[in-house]
Amino acid sequence: MSSRRKFIKQSGILALTSTVQSFTGKSISQNKQSMQSKEKTYWPDGSRLVVSISMQFEAGGQPDNAESPFPKNMQKGYTDLPGATWFEYGYKEGIPRMLDNWERLGIKVTSHMVSAAVLKNPFLAKEIVERGHEAAAHGMNWATQYNMNYEEEKKFEKDGADAIEKITGVKPVGYNANWLRRGANTLNILQELGFIYHIDDLSRDEPFIIKVNNKDFAVVPYTLRNNDILLIEGKNFSTDQFFNQVKMEFDQLYPESENRRRLMSISFHDRIGGTPQMVKTTNELIRYIQQHKGVSFKRKDEIARMTLDDKTTIRE
Amino acid sequence: MSSRRKFIKQSGILALTSTVQSFTGKSISQNKQSMQSKEKTYWPDGSRLVVSISMQFEAGGQPDNAESPFPKNMQKGYTDLPGATWFEYGYKEGIPRMLDNWERLGIKVTSHMVSAAVLKNPFLAKEIVERGHEAAAHGMNWATQYNMNYEEEKKFEKDGADAIEKITGVKPVGYNANWLRRGANTLNILQELGFIYHIDDLSRDEPFIIKVNNKDFAVVPYTLRNNDILLIEGKNFSTDQFFNQVKMEFDQLYPESENRRRLMSISFHDRIGGTPQMVKTTNELIRYIQQHKGVSFKRKDEIARMTLDDKTTIRE
Amino acid sequence: MSSRRKFIKQSGILALTSTVQSFTGKSISQNKQSMQSKEKTYWPDGSRLVVSISMQFEAGGQPDNAESPFPKNMQKGYTDLPGATWFEYGYKEGIPRMLDNWERLGIKVTSHMVSAAVLKNPFLAKEIVERGHEAAAHGMNWATQYNMNYEEEKKFEKDGADAIEKITGVKPVGYNANWLRRGANTLNILQELGFIYHIDDLSRDEPFIIKVNNKDFAVVPYTLRNNDILLIEGKNFSTDQFFNQVKMEFDQLYPESENRRRLMSISFHDRIGGTPQMVKTTNELIRYIQQHKGVSFKRKDEIARMTLDDKTTIRE
Amino acid sequence: MSSRRKFIKQSGILALTSTVQSFTGKSISQNKQSMQSKEKTYWPDGSRLVVSISMQFEAGGQPDNAESPFPKNMQKGYTDLPGATWFEYGYKEGIPRMLDNWERLGIKVTSHMVSAAVLKNPFLAKEIVERGHEAAAHGMNWATQYNMNYEEEKKFEKDGADAIEKITGVKPVGYNANWLRRGANTLNILQELGFIYHIDDLSRDEPFIIKVNNKDFAVVPYTLRNNDILLIEGKNFSTDQFFNQVKMEFDQLYPESENRRRLMSISFHDRIGGTPQMVKTTNELIRYIQQHKGVSFKRKDEIARMTLDDKTTIRE
Repeated sequence: MSSRRKFIKQSGILALTSTVQSFTGKSISQNKQSMQSKEKTYWPDGSRLVVSISMQFEAGGQPDNAESPFPKNMQKGYTDLPGATWFEYGYKEGIPRMLDNWERLGIKVTSHMVSAAVLKNPFLAKEIVERGHEAAAHGMNWATQYNMNYEEEKKFEKDGADAIEKITGVKPVGYNANWLRRGANTLNILQELGFIYHIDDLSRDEPFIIKVNNKDFAVVPYTLRNNDILLIEGKNFSTDQFFNQVKMEFDQLYPESENRRRLMSISFHDRIGGTPQMVKTTNELIRYIQQHKGVSFKRKDEIARMTLDDKTTIRE
Repeated sequence: MSSRRKFIKQSGILALTSTVQSFTGKSISQNKQSMQSKEKTYWPDGSRLVVSISMQFEAGGQPDNAESPFPKNMQKGYTDLPGATWFEYGYKEGIPRMLDNWERLGIKVTSHMVSAAVLKNPFLAKEIVERGHEAAAHGMNWATQYNMNYEEEKKFEKDGADAIEKITGVKPVGYNANWLRRGANTLNILQELGFIYHIDDLSRDEPFIIKVNNKDFAVVPYTLRNNDILLIEGKNFSTDQFFNQVKMEFDQLYPESENRRRLMSISFHDRIGGTPQMVKTTNELIRYIQQHKGVSFKRKDEIARMTLDDKTTIRE
Repeated sequence: MSSRRKFIKQSGILALTSTVQSFTGKSISQNKQSMQSKEKTYWPDGSRLVVSISMQFEAGGQPDNAESPFPKNMQKGYTDLPGATWFEYGYKEGIPRMLDNWERLGIKVTSHMVSAAVLKNPFLAKEIVERGHEAAAHGMNWATQYNMNYEEEKKFEKDGADAIEKITGVKPVGYNANWLRRGANTLNILQELGFIYHIDDLSRDEPFIIKVNNKDFAVVPYTLRNNDILLIEGKNFSTDQFFNQVKMEFDQLYPESENRRRLMSISFHDRIGGTPQMVKTTNELIRYIQQHKGVSFKRKDEIARMTLDDKTTIRE
Repeated sequence: MSSRRKFIKQSGILALTSTVQSFTGKSISQNKQSMQSKEKTYWPDGSRLVVSISMQFEAGGQPDNAESPFPKNMQKGYTDLPGATWFEYGYKEGIPRMLDNWERLGIKVTSHMVSAAVLKNPFLAKEIVERGHEAAAHGMNWATQYNMNYEEEKKFEKDGADAIEKITGVKPVGYNANWLRRGANTLNILQELGFIYHIDDLSRDEPFIIKVNNKDFAVVPYTLRNNDILLIEGKNFSTDQFFNQVKMEFDQLYPESENRRRLMSISFHDRIGGTPQMVKTTNELIRYIQQHKGVSFKRKDEIARMTLDDKTTIRE
């Protein structure tokens, strides 16, 4: 990357800035900042590459007739009973199987918990935490969040966090909105409620800090491409496609991490990532990754804390 | 799985139960039950892993212009003639080819029979049974079942079962609703008619017992992910994707079955699973599975009977 | 297959027939016939397995804004210019590349020609025939055929055949309707016009004879699964999926052909099958198939003639 | 290809021409021309096969709620915030990663720049040019271009080109319309503005010359099949499918290039082709291609200039 950094230093930043202003009337200070942050950075704890796994705990909290692999052609007024059993699989087989897999692999993950699902299966939520994983918040229920008003949304996030804390004994500090779709007030509310990070951002392969209410707030980016949601309708990707694609991701990020802080994010949903075929696939993927020196697996709360405490973290 | 069981025993069940009640007003006894059932269980007959194959016999029983790989843009009032020949393939080539394949492999399967298809090709239905496979019911015809009233539905299920019995000489004891979509009365009617199990449930990788009309009724779960329906529009999965994904499923369930009763369900539809490319794929899959000790292939009626007679079966 | 034939002989055909009649009021003589035809049959010329390749010559004959990989969101009243160039590829690169490939492989194919495309590129149509391939008819233009009245349709088919004959010097004897969708009169008209076979049927893996206007007419079945149409929107199948799936098809049909007449049908469209990646894929597929003894590649007119002249051919 | 050329010479061109005229009333001189151009041609600079890579620089220039992998079900009046971060990835990670990859591989590419994206990230646009790549125009912003009137469109193209020139110091000579969809005036306007080529044509695997305003204008064809847009919704192709398919393309074009001028076009969009998994895939693809003698990688402006100066180039 050295030629890239040299170029940036040599560029006439002032001249360019005034050219842009003549076209758009806007300054580009924000862009300068993001460029300057491309200096060599590493993880504060000496990790070479950090891998962070998400395990969505949502099944049982979904509304009637929620999206599933079944055709979307039901007559109104009826319940999609087999669709409901597709979700039940998430807590009856999926989460337990993934928990055993994480244990065999010796890694801890972040579980984004829809609180309605937590209340439906409190023992399972508690088990997740007791086995060392992070309980992060994912809303009181499966509702669209971006169109709530401030008061509604604050209650929605607070109730969700309270339920998780009462059941698991741990107060969540990370947040994930339904389909990542936060609204204009979401980050402010999260900051007010004591959350320290959110994941609803796909823009970088490393964590960064933003200002919310004039205070630092961490962004631990998520991704859709290393995500079992690619298999959601049960007909897009097969498990071997998932394996090949995620392996390729690692094969690029690992050499990159020699020069720069890199985060690899992988995600699994209870009823998709918890099937036998996906757990087997995941096991092979993680074992492949674990053969490489300097890779560590971390929960997102650990990543957020390291990020917030470190001066070399990208700020936007 | 031992750490998982230890955790469950140590958890303060009473405390959690009252916390949930304070949030929702509902008790969670059902969830305790499903947790307790996670004790070590095996198959009563000493099998390590049971594989159950479904062969849908539907072609010839479909309505005009039923879903096929052809574009859905026909002008109203005309029949999709090539679409009809796509279905005909199911009984002219598909079922006969699969029957020969099962024989070469030495396994018996469950054939879910739409009775209109049985009446259109009675010799083929009879042949399926004479060659040792199970005739299960799949409705009188290809109708949506969840929105029938009680009387309609009872007639629909009874007529279907009667036709199968008259043609094949065997009374079906298992049921599968159109697109798995049973209605609110379906299970009660099935129990009244003498059925002992249904498959319209995706929630577990092993059979379980539910109470219907206060009597035991077996659920032998189905799955969409080891199912040739993934190739239905002829453009989602290719046969190699199917092979890789189903193989991965076995590779996870087999080690799991060392500690717990596990069922692997695989499904084929006459006009899809009966193509040369799919029969070849299936042959290779089954031969791979048969190389593993302790695996047995069973019809779903055998599984249901074993399940109902066994005290360690999960009850919901 | 011997156990299958034994079963059929032993079954009580009369008893079953009367049972079906009691349910449906219809006899099942048609089905008996198709069963009896499952006796051992081979190709009259001693071929073990016959492979027949279709090469659709359509580009240049399509209507404005015909389906292509481009998004279907154009404002009305404008022409999709890049979409048109996608079709042009079919005659500028696709057909010439495929012709060279067939020559390298030493095989002759059937080209289904939209006559409007023939008139747009007459030298190419003539070249196809001069290089030994069959010119079959595919309609005067790219119109929906199933909803034409008798007179319209007869003119449509006759004009198309006449154009092909005038340009190439050969009168076509085979027919393929737009999207295989023939109407109620199509076969009668084809018989009247002197055609001897059509391909718009997916029901078997071997040719068969039907009665049209009380005369024999051959059906040389087509298939959608060994068909580059799987790549039509440019995002369903990749070329390696196509390769794997079609190879699996051969790997099943070849052993089947030891006991029974089998036809393997593979199809390519000018602008899809004629891309470099698909021609390379096809070359590898055919070379793989050619390594097997007893396989012959035939044009569909040869197959129809052999079929019509042979007493062991299936009759429906 | 020699038999193909012999055939063309022997054909009775005059006879065929009059036959077509009797059907359609139109002459076919255009088609004769394209046939004659199939003589052996090579690249003027002695290259055997030329590979040209496109890198779309669009992120930051897209409208609100532009197409992304997120579901298209947002309530009106709200912004898709995570969708916007999916695009940001293009300039924060995607382009920088691809630039480093091109440098490691030692190749120069053509960057099609939406000028609104250039103004948002001027340093990055300038860096692309300083590192040796071509800045080509891609419209002032992400607007549909085919339905603009002449004056609108001329301003749209000129403003876009001016912005690129002011920021990067280089006047673009190549053009790419939004989704390739040029209108009836586009080529005339481009010729008036001093552009020398466009890419919005999929019809050939080699560049060609057309007359625009009675002057030569080069077409450097694009393709959708060696294009990361196959992964656009994040669920069509996986990276291994992309690798296999593009490799097959090269494996056919390379032998073809022994006898004829061949161009292989490959394309990447900032937020898709710039992900770790795609950059790794691309690196492996290019390294594979670079192992073959006589292959050169060229910017499209170089290709256009060579094409326009060469008498053997195809003219349409």
